[in-house]
Amino acid sequence: MGTNYSQRVAAYRKYLQDTDASLAMCMTDVKGDRGLHPSKQKDHQDYYLHIVDENKDGIVIRGAKAHISFAAACHELMVLPCRAMTEDDKDYAVSCGVPLNAKGVTIISTPPEIPHAQKGSFDFPLGGGLGGDAIIVFDDVFVPNERVFLKKEWRFAVMQTYMFSNFHRMTADAYKYPIIQKFVGCAMLIAEYNGIERYGHVRDKISWLVKYAETTEALGRLACELCVSEADSDLVYPKPMLSNLAKLYFAENSMESIQHMMDLAGGIMATMPREKDFKNPVTGPMLQKYLRGKAEVPTEYRVKAINLAKALCGEFEQIASLNAEGSMASQRLQIYGTAPFQEWKELAKKMAGIPIDKKK
Amino acid sequence: MGTNYSQRVAAYRKYLQDTDASLAMCMTDVKGDRGLHPSKQKDHQDYYLHIVDENKDGIVIRGAKAHISFAAACHELMVLPCRAMTEDDKDYAVSCGVPLNAKGVTIISTPPEIPHAQKGSFDFPLGGGLGGDAIIVFDDVFVPNERVFLKKEWRFAVMQTYMFSNFHRMTADAYKYPIIQKFVGCAMLIAEYNGIERYGHVRDKISWLVKYAETTEALGRLACELCVSEADSDLVYPKPMLSNLAKLYFAENSMESIQHMMDLAGGIMATMPREKDFKNPVTGPMLQKYLRGKAEVPTEYRVKAINLAKALCGEFEQIASLNAEGSMASQRLQIYGTAPFQEWKELAKKMAGIPIDKKK
Amino acid sequence: MGTNYSQRVAAYRKYLQDTDASLAMCMTDVKGDRGLHPSKQKDHQDYYLHIVDENKDGIVIRGAKAHISFAAACHELMVLPCRAMTEDDKDYAVSCGVPLNAKGVTIISTPPEIPHAQKGSFDFPLGGGLGGDAIIVFDDVFVPNERVFLKKEWRFAVMQTYMFSNFHRMTADAYKYPIIQKFVGCAMLIAEYNGIERYGHVRDKISWLVKYAETTEALGRLACELCVSEADSDLVYPKPMLSNLAKLYFAENSMESIQHMMDLAGGIMATMPREKDFKNPVTGPMLQKYLRGKAEVPTEYRVKAINLAKALCGEFEQIASLNAEGSMASQRLQIYGTAPFQEWKELAKKMAGIPIDKKK
Amino acid sequence: MGTNYSQRVAAYRKYLQDTDASLAMCMTDVKGDRGLHPSKQKDHQDYYLHIVDENKDGIVIRGAKAHISFAAACHELMVLPCRAMTEDDKDYAVSCGVPLNAKGVTIISTPPEIPHAQKGSFDFPLGGGLGGDAIIVFDDVFVPNERVFLKKEWRFAVMQTYMFSNFHRMTADAYKYPIIQKFVGCAMLIAEYNGIERYGHVRDKISWLVKYAETTEALGRLACELCVSEADSDLVYPKPMLSNLAKLYFAENSMESIQHMMDLAGGIMATMPREKDFKNPVTGPMLQKYLRGKAEVPTEYRVKAINLAKALCGEFEQIASLNAEGSMASQRLQIYGTAPFQEWKELAKKMAGIPIDKKK
Repeated sequence: MGTNYSQRVAAYRKYLQDTDASLAMCMTDVKGDRGLHPSKQKDHQDYYLHIVDENKDGIVIRGAKAHISFAAACHELMVLPCRAMTEDDKDYAVSCGVPLNAKGVTIISTPPEIPHAQKGSFDFPLGGGLGGDAIIVFDDVFVPNERVFLKKEWRFAVMQTYMFSNFHRMTADAYKYPIIQKFVGCAMLIAEYNGIERYGHVRDKISWLVKYAETTEALGRLACELCVSEADSDLVYPKPMLSNLAKLYFAENSMESIQHMMDLAGGIMATMPREKDFKNPVTGPMLQKYLRGKAEVPTEYRVKAINLAKALCGEFEQIASLNAEGSMASQRLQIYGTAPFQEWKELAKKMAGIPIDKKK
Repeated sequence: MGTNYSQRVAAYRKYLQDTDASLAMCMTDVKGDRGLHPSKQKDHQDYYLHIVDENKDGIVIRGAKAHISFAAACHELMVLPCRAMTEDDKDYAVSCGVPLNAKGVTIISTPPEIPHAQKGSFDFPLGGGLGGDAIIVFDDVFVPNERVFLKKEWRFAVMQTYMFSNFHRMTADAYKYPIIQKFVGCAMLIAEYNGIERYGHVRDKISWLVKYAETTEALGRLACELCVSEADSDLVYPKPMLSNLAKLYFAENSMESIQHMMDLAGGIMATMPREKDFKNPVTGPMLQKYLRGKAEVPTEYRVKAINLAKALCGEFEQIASLNAEGSMASQRLQIYGTAPFQEWKELAKKMAGIPIDKKK
Repeated sequence: MGTNYSQRVAAYRKYLQDTDASLAMCMTDVKGDRGLHPSKQKDHQDYYLHIVDENKDGIVIRGAKAHISFAAACHELMVLPCRAMTEDDKDYAVSCGVPLNAKGVTIISTPPEIPHAQKGSFDFPLGGGLGGDAIIVFDDVFVPNERVFLKKEWRFAVMQTYMFSNFHRMTADAYKYPIIQKFVGCAMLIAEYNGIERYGHVRDKISWLVKYAETTEALGRLACELCVSEADSDLVYPKPMLSNLAKLYFAENSMESIQHMMDLAGGIMATMPREKDFKNPVTGPMLQKYLRGKAEVPTEYRVKAINLAKALCGEFEQIASLNAEGSMASQRLQIYGTAPFQEWKELAKKMAGIPIDKKK
Repeated sequence: MGTNYSQRVAAYRKYLQDTDASLAMCMTDVKGDRGLHPSKQKDHQDYYLHIVDENKDGIVIRGAKAHISFAAACHELMVLPCRAMTEDDKDYAVSCGVPLNAKGVTIISTPPEIPHAQKGSFDFPLGGGLGGDAIIVFDDVFVPNERVFLKKEWRFAVMQTYMFSNFHRMTADAYKYPIIQKFVGCAMLIAEYNGIERYGHVRDKISWLVKYAETTEALGRLACELCVSEADSDLVYPKPMLSNLAKLYFAENSMESIQHMMDLAGGIMATMPREKDFKNPVTGPMLQKYLRGKAEVPTEYRVKAINLAKALCGEFEQIASLNAEGSMASQRLQIYGTAPFQEWKELAKKMAGIPIDKKK
């Protein structure tokens, strides 16, 4: 890139460190008609964030970025492109750092699904759904040159998207394994509390869940063990094939993990009475008596484990497993794009007795 | 059965018709330790509803039935066993009709998941989750003889469970098809509103959903077309193999249907702003501008379709698809139990050149 | 169609009946580059059968049809198009009846996979693989007018393909159910002979196989029960949605059925000694002693059941399950094409609170 | 173990090295009734190999081991137990080294499936199926003490089975990846030769195959990267959880890999004409003309690629993928047995608000 972007990046990085600023990555545009390129959208041209003006001091950007987790709690917004750009779309090839309180920035955050549900409560041990994801609108925000890291160099847009995704998929894997550990632990508790842990079909389901946990962890871990170092740079990143495999693996299997939990816990996951019923002097003792599983386990343990299972299987969590850190389609695309087909085709040709000819 | 149960049943049926009473079927016991038989439970013997006393006028029952939908809105509770009973468990072989207001009956109903969510609202078009499922406690309830339809004839317990399940699985299929029709319709709307309906992978997902709808319907319909008539009786019931296949089919595939919807709709299903953000004079116009998909479709249509998708994929609905009308294991058991293995083994023997010998 | 095709068809049908002729349907063209239309193929224009000449008495056709089962044993070849045609491809819109011994017809049949394997033999109870499928080359074959049923009326090509597929998928389903019955019977025999039929995971696999058999049968049967009558015609055909669902169901699940069989039978399916080892005076008694399963079943029964399992899981059978009577993609396409999306979208709109507007 | 087994093992290992002997591992017994323990078998007690006599110089063993690949080409047979033994079964707890030409050893090897098929031939590029797997009968074979490594110490039987399986599953993974590379290369060649490589559903299938290859490799590789060192020993072995995951992963997904290949290649995989048809002066030129795919690729390339696909999808290969190196059930069992449930349950309890109590 012509401009000395490296110096700008280094300075910005130093600024972040000096101020201990937290950063939200703003990649996903709102996209409008998914069948049309950024500059070919019909009713307006702002479905992908773009440069609408520039002068010698900086640029002006307009657009909206979606699904930005906890944006309202960050100091800085790092804007970057979410796809490859063509020359026609060069105004959309932009990355830059924007302070949260910049003029023209509006944060629209979602509330939790069940606002009154408190984290740690009996009924909703994880609270009322995550909340805090934001659509961030950039309404003609001025960004000074020293905070601009890509400006219309459209060929490089895809590289930023791609490199970000390598890390992003890795982070997905990194937070997912600890969740699945608890998920499997919870499933095992419920099986034991229900007195069914020794049955073959139950062990099969638990064994499936262990496989889910350990394969997720293994793929992510190997992505780091075999990390890639960029020549002439201090950039080190997870092996792209593996970080994509890791994310895709847990996404593709997440619904089955939930099915197993629901199968092990049973319908009571949906029809569990609430804390007030347990505290009610008439119904409380009844529920204490009847909702026990195995005799030696207090009723409350079983109820809490089932309430945790319900929280862990929540719809928000499901959608995030599938779509956060990129759709499954985006991972499939990168897996396809990263495979050494030429080499594998030659191995097959040798075996089949077909002459090695690079073109055919 | 020795007692003239047929007459009692006929009289009770007439009573129900004359009074236009609605009836809740109360089958599933709370079960305690799932690894132990009803009479072998450890801390108390009431995990399965049973007869604790009797005199010349009737019986006294104790226990609790779970997952009884809309019990509080019914007039009569029809109690029946939820499993095969052995002779040791004969006190648990009981079925009878109990008025909702009988002395000793307590109904503990669940509230909706999100109590403040109104059906038809912008954010929650189907309301805040179903609610209304109850645990019903029978605390030494007296039932007069004329309302007792099974009393310790333990060999017949399984027949009642079995026959109920034939109908119950059929009803599951009957209400599921109309839901899936709307589910597929909603998926198609979202695909169109997002401008992706012509892509191959989208058509594949929609095609999968059509298959899901039509196979569910076909199996249930054929269960009725090939219904079974009980000799010497006016009983006609859905073909058991097919009603079980129908329920199992939609249960086993329900999580994949949800995955496809979440894949088509994307992360916005989890991070959609709420009605108040759309009505807010600052953020409303921003969301109108940025959350549109295809140019010719109003933003509101797209948002409503996505909010409907979210409601249709709700956790309650998922658990119900898997576990209502019996777990998948119970359907697999009946499918296994209904198969003509002797005939099929003989066909295989003929083909393999093995002598036909009924024992080997 | 302008020409009086109905009369020609009736006459041809009468001829077939009078001569008791058997007919092979010749639909699938060899296709060349699957990414190009019939008339856009590069190195020659004959990858799809087409009309290369015509005079007042008839037409001359050239091309090749593939996968024609038992063609060499038939009397007549019924040629029809395998896809929708555009106006550019109108020479490819042709259907006609050709006697097997017409000048210019060459039949190239495949031998069985293992030519020396005899049907009914100990090692290969079903023989050495089916064989008999042919590529039929039509090298400028003259067809007189009275045997031509479609001649360049390109808009009608797709209708012939479509109507043939409705029947063809139904026939697939009709022959598949009896095979699966034997398949399940064989799996059950092996489970019993190995002494494992009472284990939970074995019952689950057998139960899966029963489901596979009965769902295949149910979908095909309902396609017939709900058959469609063409107005003003004596044409009655299986309901297209259901005949496609039936074929797709058994194709999509065929590999899992085979996996279950291989899992139940174990590695011996691949390493079973041959008849000559059993007849050998040294090794025969050893194998009799050691290859027994359950004590009360003769070794020979077990060996024969496993050899049958191997034959039923043969590669030819697998490829046929997937690809005969049309690829899975072709069924998905028709399922998609047959769905009442307009109706389902309106149901969804009503539920979501979106105005009913046919266009959006 | 009382006897100085370590010295014996070291001496035997030296012997193997000095003589450059190749060794076949003989683990799987023929098993008889799978529902009965070794010493509880009914018609004879030899279904599991056992010690039938002993004197001061050594032991005498009887039994049969199955599925021993290429036994006839080895010098030494290493016998070891295939399961955990109880005290009742202590005679079955035996491991020892037996020369192939020991008195009483009989090798019964299977021939290839299609004996006349030559490796490297046009029709069967990989030859006629593997062949060479043997049942080895030990008919009262004497083994001198210095070659006996386990003698009735029944508690240690399971450790030998377990440790062997760690390595065995790793070797499975090690040979599978190079096969899958060729498999994917072959699928890609066929897609390109057919002119369909750019279609979405084709890329999805190829992408699935890449995932299959790379996940198989990753899990096996990490098993080695995180290998376990036995304290006070020179034993280093692959991490058991990961070597089991690796084997299970490729087994569970092997049938889907084959389905994708069959779907990409189409019915011609089953109906391909043979070499003699290509060499025949009449039919050869016809096949050259009609079996081409993309214009720029010689027909022969396409035919050879499809014949290779068929060979790679062969039934022997399928059964081996599922059952060689242990059934899927055995891997699931070890995955279950290796999981840190106590730790995971405590994580779940913390989250659910359940007191940490090791017993409940």
